[in-house]
Amino acid sequence: MTIEPALLNNAVFHTYALTACIMILKLMLQPWMTVYRMMSVRGGFRSPEDAKASPLNPNPSDTQLSVNEYVDRSRRMNLNDLENIPGFLAAGFFFALSNPPLWLAQVLLWTFVAARAAHFVAYVTAQLHDVRATFWTFGSLAVIVMTAYALVQLF
Amino acid sequence: MTIEPALLNNAVFHTYALTACIMILKLMLQPWMTVYRMMSVRGGFRSPEDAKASPLNPNPSDTQLSVNEYVDRSRRMNLNDLENIPGFLAAGFFFALSNPPLWLAQVLLWTFVAARAAHFVAYVTAQLHDVRATFWTFGSLAVIVMTAYALVQLF
Amino acid sequence: MTIEPALLNNAVFHTYALTACIMILKLMLQPWMTVYRMMSVRGGFRSPEDAKASPLNPNPSDTQLSVNEYVDRSRRMNLNDLENIPGFLAAGFFFALSNPPLWLAQVLLWTFVAARAAHFVAYVTAQLHDVRATFWTFGSLAVIVMTAYALVQLF
Repeated sequence: MTIEPALLNNAVFHTYALTACIMILKLMLQPWMTVYRMMSVRGGFRSPEDAKASPLNPNPSDTQLSVNEYVDRSRRMNLNDLENIPGFLAAGFFFALSNPPLWLAQVLLWTFVAARAAHFVAYVTAQLHDVRATFWTFGSLAVIVMTAYALVQLF
Repeated sequence: MTIEPALLNNAVFHTYALTACIMILKLMLQPWMTVYRMMSVRGGFRSPEDAKASPLNPNPSDTQLSVNEYVDRSRRMNLNDLENIPGFLAAGFFFALSNPPLWLAQVLLWTFVAARAAHFVAYVTAQLHDVRATFWTFGSLAVIVMTAYALVQLF
Repeated sequence: MTIEPALLNNAVFHTYALTACIMILKLMLQPWMTVYRMMSVRGGFRSPEDAKASPLNPNPSDTQLSVNEYVDRSRRMNLNDLENIPGFLAAGFFFALSNPPLWLAQVLLWTFVAARAAHFVAYVTAQLHDVRATFWTFGSLAVIVMTAYALVQLF
């Protein structure tokens, strides 16, 4: 049985699916930046066994287990994604089901994507906290407004 | 094309959507408590650049980067949300699709919401571990039972 | 109103729902391993109030708040789940809606489940980083491919 294409043919849901898939990619690719950074500095590991000799780690040392700011920055960015993207994915779903006007859906969904892209750039280049916080705020508010909209429609 | 209102017209799914939106708000608002606490104590920051002078941080100092228990408590609460709420949002979806009796859905979904609200109060007021753990347990079990119910229906 | 059984009668969506429910259980059960380990070593707690006397902690001491590797391993496993499973749950949803061939859906969805099971075993038994990283990679790539597939279908 083929799934009814009703969901993806709906313009709001289509925008939601598009922005959601972009954000899932962001969520899944951030750990790859952490892996890349761990491999380039050969450090920033977290588990005791990670400082054992292995094909990928031929010259181990205990200092590899120390916190490494270059690696840790990517981990913090990942944690920030975890605090925001799953909430966005769920909020967008209920928001799309509540039949909002298309323009509002496009504004809120793409605001989140743009805010997170800007937050990524601000974080990775270590901009002032105020800059990063501003982009984070736009993303967070977009999710809160979508959730509040869906909640109002449920009553 | 309008999305078929079948989902939201279903009483179980409606309860799921309502409780899910409440929990998404909880998930998204906890970081705002962290922000509020960071701003009031002017500390508990995490990135080296957060201790640089900026409009929101006119008198920076290195001690702003130390762990601050008042701020860290809110971060731990956020992490606890991350460990529980996304699982609830997904479990509730499959549970609702498996057509459970309405009374069971209401009991499990609202138990989760009540348990997390009580957990929030216990954590923010630093009650004994036993108290916090008890509320956490109710929430965790509600999600596990919903998932098990959905799993059984899939066979 | 009964929910249209269209979703769960679709073979791809059924496989998605099945693997998703298994992964939700994994996500929710990992904290129980942390609880079990905290109770057996009576340590690895995180909040100051956890080192107060209580029925479950009759002989408290400040060392209970130190990081305990046995407990912390389970916490790191939980964090690794948080970085991967919510992304899988969302990616699988959009992937299933994009009507992929059943064989491809089965390969990708079950690859993720098998990779995470193997990652769990490798992590809990402290295998070399290379082993754990290999299993993590399979899981991560499965989610990335599913998301990319869904994204392509949206254009």
